[in-house]
Amino acid sequence: MDNFILNKENEIYYECGYSCDNVIFLNLGDEKYFITDGRYTIDATQNATAEVITTKNLLKTAKEILLKKRIKKLKIDPANWDYESFVSLSKIVTLQKIPNYSHKKRMIKSQKELEIIKKSVYLGALAFEEFKTEIEFNINEFELSYRFKEKLSARGSRDLSFEPIVAINENSAKPHAVVSEKILNKNDILLLDAGLKYQRYCSDRTRTINPNNNSMSKIQKFENSEYQKIYDIVLKAQEEAIKNIKIGMPIKKLDEIAREVITKAGYGEYFVHSLGHGVGLDIHEWPYVNSRNDIKIKEGMVFTIEPGIYLPDKFGVRIEDMVCINLDGSVEVMSEYI
Amino acid sequence: MDNFILNKENEIYYECGYSCDNVIFLNLGDEKYFITDGRYTIDATQNATAEVITTKNLLKTAKEILLKKRIKKLKIDPANWDYESFVSLSKIVTLQKIPNYSHKKRMIKSQKELEIIKKSVYLGALAFEEFKTEIEFNINEFELSYRFKEKLSARGSRDLSFEPIVAINENSAKPHAVVSEKILNKNDILLLDAGLKYQRYCSDRTRTINPNNNSMSKIQKFENSEYQKIYDIVLKAQEEAIKNIKIGMPIKKLDEIAREVITKAGYGEYFVHSLGHGVGLDIHEWPYVNSRNDIKIKEGMVFTIEPGIYLPDKFGVRIEDMVCINLDGSVEVMSEYI
Repeated sequence: MDNFILNKENEIYYECGYSCDNVIFLNLGDEKYFITDGRYTIDATQNATAEVITTKNLLKTAKEILLKKRIKKLKIDPANWDYESFVSLSKIVTLQKIPNYSHKKRMIKSQKELEIIKKSVYLGALAFEEFKTEIEFNINEFELSYRFKEKLSARGSRDLSFEPIVAINENSAKPHAVVSEKILNKNDILLLDAGLKYQRYCSDRTRTINPNNNSMSKIQKFENSEYQKIYDIVLKAQEEAIKNIKIGMPIKKLDEIAREVITKAGYGEYFVHSLGHGVGLDIHEWPYVNSRNDIKIKEGMVFTIEPGIYLPDKFGVRIEDMVCINLDGSVEVMSEYI
Repeated sequence: MDNFILNKENEIYYECGYSCDNVIFLNLGDEKYFITDGRYTIDATQNATAEVITTKNLLKTAKEILLKKRIKKLKIDPANWDYESFVSLSKIVTLQKIPNYSHKKRMIKSQKELEIIKKSVYLGALAFEEFKTEIEFNINEFELSYRFKEKLSARGSRDLSFEPIVAINENSAKPHAVVSEKILNKNDILLLDAGLKYQRYCSDRTRTINPNNNSMSKIQKFENSEYQKIYDIVLKAQEEAIKNIKIGMPIKKLDEIAREVITKAGYGEYFVHSLGHGVGLDIHEWPYVNSRNDIKIKEGMVFTIEPGIYLPDKFGVRIEDMVCINLDGSVEVMSEYI
């Protein structure tokens, strides 16, 4: 029976099953208002479990409803609102600032959400498999990425979770590599990080492979012994973290476990990011799996486990899978389906 | 010698020739600071004409610089900042709120910008031509869109200005149609609205065509007499507006001229949007070509002229070209190059 206001697409989808890129959503007790412009009236009316109101000035209409309903207090995530809109709202209602209001609600997934996410992860893993036979030598990262996206998007009929990373050798040493004209050659190392959306829920997966072998398996054999050495450390870090996932454990413990494997092997300074992040309607959401987050692991959580070692100007290895805690308490490594 | 702060990617690119998705830019007199995180340090240092500062907390570092340099007043566009950041900044410096600060600066293009935009428009028009032979009957809008994007993006090596609109028959009656599974048949009417980016500058173009004829020309012949009637009215509206572009004229006059042609033909109520918009680093920027904007047409402006008639549940016609006012005062219809 909360009173709250939202303006972010995914946050609103979560509340009423529909969203668009120009909407303010009001939840006033048990009444819900989807305030949008004329472009979305028909779709919203058919799909949103909320009263759809069409207007040219969303904020003005929201304020009119708040006044009419004599609303005194309204929850709001201050990071999502521009200064002018926030001040304008605050003149007619007491705003209760709640950072990450929607992220907190969405951290624990329902059975239905878990099923959708599993399908998203399955389709993502399938796209990695389909892409295998498209990998050729003497073509560049742009062309590889284009072919990968053809599979991930099913020729444009599905959205991607994010622009895929396709990185060869020294480019793979950049955790957020951008696709370039670098050409793939035999015995290179190739990092692939990609995901797609199914019913708006994201998947996310990384494989680092020897392109000679035509396999997306996590068992990778490299001619180059340094590649193999680093690969095996990262894989061990991932396996140790996954093996130790337990309900009730502070999630930062997982980052610690993976980091310890890498640090003991002498590469701690090259694991430059945190271990993982939650995944859902947003590609990055709660719970973050880093060294500071002491939130406890619970049923319904979905997050990535993605350790990496990045040797500047040489190469990088990252292995990423999505994990969920099922409602029965079992831990499932989702992107290992295939 | 202004003091101002920016956080939007294109606004910052305009100031220093480089940008990324996590940056705060400070212009303090003749000093420029590009404050970003470690992922972008190398690229920024190589490309930005500003001092690059790497930090984990952008806002905190920006505030430290402002304090150190004893800055008292700072220009800011309040719509671009979330409430918390704005309030945090306002505690250490007097913020001068200037709505559309960057849009105003960027409305008049330089000779170099005009040349880049012309190239972007040329490549966009070329992609329409290349797509011609990819149009087939019995395939759906998704597949058509996929093939169109292959040409527009040159197989993923160029960014698009926006997700293209590919709309058949009744779908073309929606000004912002979303790609669907609708199949293209002979004698249909097909609306195509797309653009690409060249050196970050956008192009934008719409053609409504008879797919039987394999032509992207504005001279279109339809078997269906209603299609032809509406098409001819929209084309006349566009031609009249373009013919009348004059330096010093309030830009709203163009909307009025096009609207009068359509209204006189009896379809005024079906021209449901404004005549056009500026184009540059953003796909929609100043000057807006609508019935309220009385800004005067000037050398260096770039905008679209895109009248449309939308008959709900039947079909729609829109014809869009980009126009620029060259620095010598001549008017150029850029997307008619091909």
